[in-house]
This record gives sequence, structure tokens and C-alpha cells, in this order.
Amino acid sequence: MRAALMYGAGDVRVETVPDAALAEPTDAIVRVTAGCICGSDLWPYASKKPSEQGSRMGHEFVGVVEQVGDAVTDVKVGDFVIAPFVYSDGTCDFCRDGLQTSCRHGGNWGGTHGDGGQGEVVRVPQADGTLVVVPAGFDEALVPSLLALSDVMSTGYHAAKMGGVTAGQSVAVIGDGAVGLSAVIAAKLLGASQIILLGRHTDRTDLGREFGATDVVPERGDEAIARVRELTGGDGVHVVLEAVGLGDATVTAIGIVRDGGSISRVGVPQEREAPFGRPEFLRNLTLTGGVAPARHYIPELLPLVLDGTIEPGRVFDRTVDLDGVPDGYRAMADRNALKVMVRP
Amino acid sequence: MRAALMYGAGDVRVETVPDAALAEPTDAIVRVTAGCICGSDLWPYASKKPSEQGSRMGHEFVGVVEQVGDAVTDVKVGDFVIAPFVYSDGTCDFCRDGLQTSCRHGGNWGGTHGDGGQGEVVRVPQADGTLVVVPAGFDEALVPSLLALSDVMSTGYHAAKMGGVTAGQSVAVIGDGAVGLSAVIAAKLLGASQIILLGRHTDRTDLGREFGATDVVPERGDEAIARVRELTGGDGVHVVLEAVGLGDATVTAIGIVRDGGSISRVGVPQEREAPFGRPEFLRNLTLTGGVAPARHYIPELLPLVLDGTIEPGRVFDRTVDLDGVPDGYRAMADRNALKVMVRP
Repeated sequence: MRAALMYGAGDVRVETVPDAALAEPTDAIVRVTAGCICGSDLWPYASKKPSEQGSRMGHEFVGVVEQVGDAVTDVKVGDFVIAPFVYSDGTCDFCRDGLQTSCRHGGNWGGTHGDGGQGEVVRVPQADGTLVVVPAGFDEALVPSLLALSDVMSTGYHAAKMGGVTAGQSVAVIGDGAVGLSAVIAAKLLGASQIILLGRHTDRTDLGREFGATDVVPERGDEAIARVRELTGGDGVHVVLEAVGLGDATVTAIGIVRDGGSISRVGVPQEREAPFGRPEFLRNLTLTGGVAPARHYIPELLPLVLDGTIEPGRVFDRTVDLDGVPDGYRAMADRNALKVMVRP
Repeated sequence: MRAALMYGAGDVRVETVPDAALAEPTDAIVRVTAGCICGSDLWPYASKKPSEQGSRMGHEFVGVVEQVGDAVTDVKVGDFVIAPFVYSDGTCDFCRDGLQTSCRHGGNWGGTHGDGGQGEVVRVPQADGTLVVVPAGFDEALVPSLLALSDVMSTGYHAAKMGGVTAGQSVAVIGDGAVGLSAVIAAKLLGASQIILLGRHTDRTDLGREFGATDVVPERGDEAIARVRELTGGDGVHVVLEAVGLGDATVTAIGIVRDGGSISRVGVPQEREAPFGRPEFLRNLTLTGGVAPARHYIPELLPLVLDGTIEPGRVFDRTVDLDGVPDGYRAMADRNALKVMVRP
């Protein structure tokens, strides 16, 4: 079978790899209908040291189950399934608490020992705990939005849930990437009455408006802070959903959040420390968020995709086949594409 | 009248000052029944630069209303009242949201322009918004616990509420000062099933056990982390209530909190940054807490003091008169006293 591997910064290749095969009785084999390239894939694409051994890529996919191990009971051959961006056993205490990202037997897709979603077929560990079956079965029109549940939509929703967004609140979303736009959808779902999207790519912020953003702030830094405060009567928003991960975004978040408010971050932090000292303490600010347990949210979000309430798949603005994956990385890194879908 | 002033580190004097007097129609004049010295007073007591102009001290007191301004309607002459550690109007949006520490017309006691609780009489701004009337009136036996509602008990409760402590959870409290011990009471009130108190002053941790601590950990640093993990099946506690404020305490908190858990801090942070980067993000940790809106919690906690459910006043282990205030500071700074009550 064929799959994408990253050998270093800027170096993604599509190669023939060993066929995916059952290794544990809890495994399933899933043929990938659609995978995609993640904003988080761009960090190693920018900085990974060259290596002789490539890393298998892709942690978001939907597909059809081709085989299951003897211990798999819930997932059946032929099921159309969504894979969250980490696998998890579904039975440990963390999974039962809805924190599948801390599963005692979970792990990451791809790398040097696992299959990734940017390939033809994937061995899925802990299949019953990991995969979510789409009850309606395969539907071509829904593929993009179901695929978005793998990561970006669930991540945006995690931001909003951890931030405690409730009806009538004002929310700011920092970042107009696929996660930021998904966070707009999430804030709207939870009833936010004002949703301010901070981003400067007009095509993306236009989509953000369609998703529910009431205001767009293209400014950055102090100017962005001033603008959001102006839009909120001087006091800032109840909740900031931070979908960037850079320190500047945290500083902006602190500047635009109302006293007593929350900054919920789902952009992977690129810095070791957060500027959360006495001023933030005196303002009763909360710093929350983290890596999203997508598996926890997919069952809740799936019906909303199936009935058309949300269409997170609109974040995909380019589709490539497997051979097009290197081009897809380039397009996303150069900001020529918002999010690239891969149809192997 | 007489009151305590701080002129610099280690330099507290009791002097004659201008009599407290109504200045605004929203003021009340309260004769102090009891005030106290706060752990937070020890920061300037250790580091304040010498000044010609002293700062009036004390932000916790209970007392009897002697006069009210023309615009005061809820508080009456003769009422026995509790003053939260900041004053607040009670009517602005922040006050209505229960965040009186961010009140639009609020402020701090003492300093160079206001009266403080370590004195005979206090002018109370925004009297209706600030003061909580004790419906049962004056009761000598309840004075310490009512006084504790001014700050430490409400602060401990804020830690537990912001940390989201719920029934059956495991909670760790870092710090065996008056706030830490109050946090133990709060964790128990909210139903925590395991309450681990980190502290090494046996007299204090003994009181902590009486308040509800199920375990005491006198170790520090990595040893404390190992011990708490051992006590919690390896994974740490659901919520950490951090009542110290030093960076080491934050590091310990991160080490002892369970994935998905919260660190709620009520010790005033002494450092500008918090070590909240990628590892904490991947574990879905939340950093919350802040300066406690005591005014918000007093009405909820007051009945529990009146009916004897909680006895936070037991944190007071020494009482001085006004002339004894300088000795009281020394005793607390030298850790010879846990918390000193002042009876002018």
C-alpha cells in the first residue's frame, strides 16, 4: 500500500509501505475514504530535522472497516467510521471521564511504528474504543464534515466547552485557521451572542462570518486589543478561544478577556511559560483548554452534521489524491490553502 | 482615634489618626469589634521601602455601624456587620455577576487615603454594597469565625469553587496557613472525599485534620509530588488549591494534579509567568483562581458559621489589642502565630 511520510522539514514523500495488518485482537483495519493535513502537521513541516527514517503522517480520517480482530465487538466489517486524532481504549477511567487523550492504553497515529491517515489503509488499535460508527453509513456529500469531526471541529468545540461558553456570552476567537473557524461554529452552537473572530485572511474570515462570527478584527497586538474592547463596551469578552499557540496570541487573549473570564487554548503552545502572574490573578482570569478528546465529542456532534445543523467540512478548500500530498503541505504552509483533504 | 500604620519593612506603628468620618452619602462609619493581620500583610512587612508617610493597614474586620450616610438604605446604625476585604458598590455588572473584586466603584481598605481594619473605626465606602449584616446580631463566641469570612474563609472557598470541587473528588491543598486551612474546610463542604494537606507545621496540619484533611504531606518538591501520587493511586488529585503564591508551589501543583484537573490558586502570585506550556496543554490542565470576591460568598457561608457547621475562626491562635499589633506582625512573620486577631 502507499502512504505519505515526512523525512524532514519541507520533505514529504509518498511511498510504498508494508500493508496494514491486524496485530492485536483489539485492532481493526480501515481503508481510508478521506484523510487530511492538519495545521499541527505544519510545525514539523517547518522544523523537523532530516532523518533517514520517515515518519508516517496523518491523524484524521474517515473510512470503511475491512477487517476486525477477534476481540472487536462493536465495530463491524463494512462500517463507515470516524477516527479521532488519537486512539483510546474507551474503558479506562480517563476514557470514562471523557478525557480519551489521557487514555491508559491510547496513543498517536503514524510516526515510525503506526499507520497514519495520509495513506491508503490504517491499522486501528483499540478499535472499539477509538472508532465512531456513522449510523447512516457512507454519504459522499457528508465526507468533509464527518472528517472535520476527527480533529478540527472537535477541537474547536473543546475550546468552547472548556472555556465554559454559555448562551448570551461574548466570545473572541483568535486565529482564522480551520480550528479557529470550527471554534466559531462551536461558540454559536453554545449560544454565544457575540462572536468576534480575530484573523486577517479575508477568505477565511468571510467563512467565519457564515459560521456565525458577528465581528471580524483583522488588527493584531495592541490594535486588536483596542478594537475588541471597543466592540465589547470597553471590558472585553467573557471567553477567548485561542487557536494559534504562539505567545503573542496569549498576550492578546489576556488583553481582550473580561475580568473573571476564561482563555481556552487549543493551539499547541509553542512556549514553555504563560504570562499568568499577579495582574491576571487580580482579574480572576482562567487559563484552560488543551488537546481535545475528540472521541468524547464526536457522538454529540455527529447528529448535528447528519442533520445539517453544522457544516464544518467547509473548511476544506482543496482536495488532493495521495500523490498530491506533498503539494498539499506546500499549499497549507504557504497559506494558499486553508485545509487540504486527501482522497487516497 | 488610633490605628496601625506601616512605614516600611518590619516597621508597624500604632498612632493617633484623624477620626473616621462620613465623606460620601453612601458611606457608613463602623466601630471595629475585631480586625486581624493577613498573610498578605506579610509581603510588605518583609519588603516595603521605608516611607515618611505610613500606610493604614488591615482589610478584614467585623464591627458595629455607628453612622450611615443619607444614601445608605440597607445598613442601619447598630447593625453588627462583616466587611469583605475590598469594598464594592453591589450594583454594577461585575458585582451582579459575583465578581465584586472587579467592582467599577470598588477599592481597597487602608493605604494613604482610607481607613483600615487594624484601627478603632473605619469609614466604609459603598456601605450597602460592601457590608453584610449579621442577622443574629453580635455574638462574642462567633466573632472569630465571622471575622474569618472577611477574607481567609471566603478565599479558601473561592479556591474550591473556582477549582470546581465536586462531591467524591480528591483535592490537595498546598499551604498550611490560614487560607490553606480554610481551603480544607471548603473542600470538605463541597464533598471532596480525599483532602490532602501539604504543610509541615504540625500544629497547623493537626488543625487541618480537624477541619477535614484526610492526609497530611510534610514533604516538599519532588518528594511531595511522589507522596501525593502514591496517595492517589499514581495519578494525582482532581483539584489542587494553591494557597502559597510562590513559583515552587505551582510546580508542585502541576506535579500532583491529575490529567484534566484544575489548579486553583489563591496565594498571590509572586512571579510573572506560570509554567503552563505544552506538557500542561497535553494533560488538559486548567489554571484558575484569583483574588476572592468575599462579598459574593459571605451570604452563603454566614449561615454555616451561625449554625456551627464550620468554625473557620479556629485559625486565630493569638489575640492582641491595638498596641499589640506590631508584636502580632512579628509573631506571624516569625511563624510563631498562625493568624492574629486584633481587638481594638
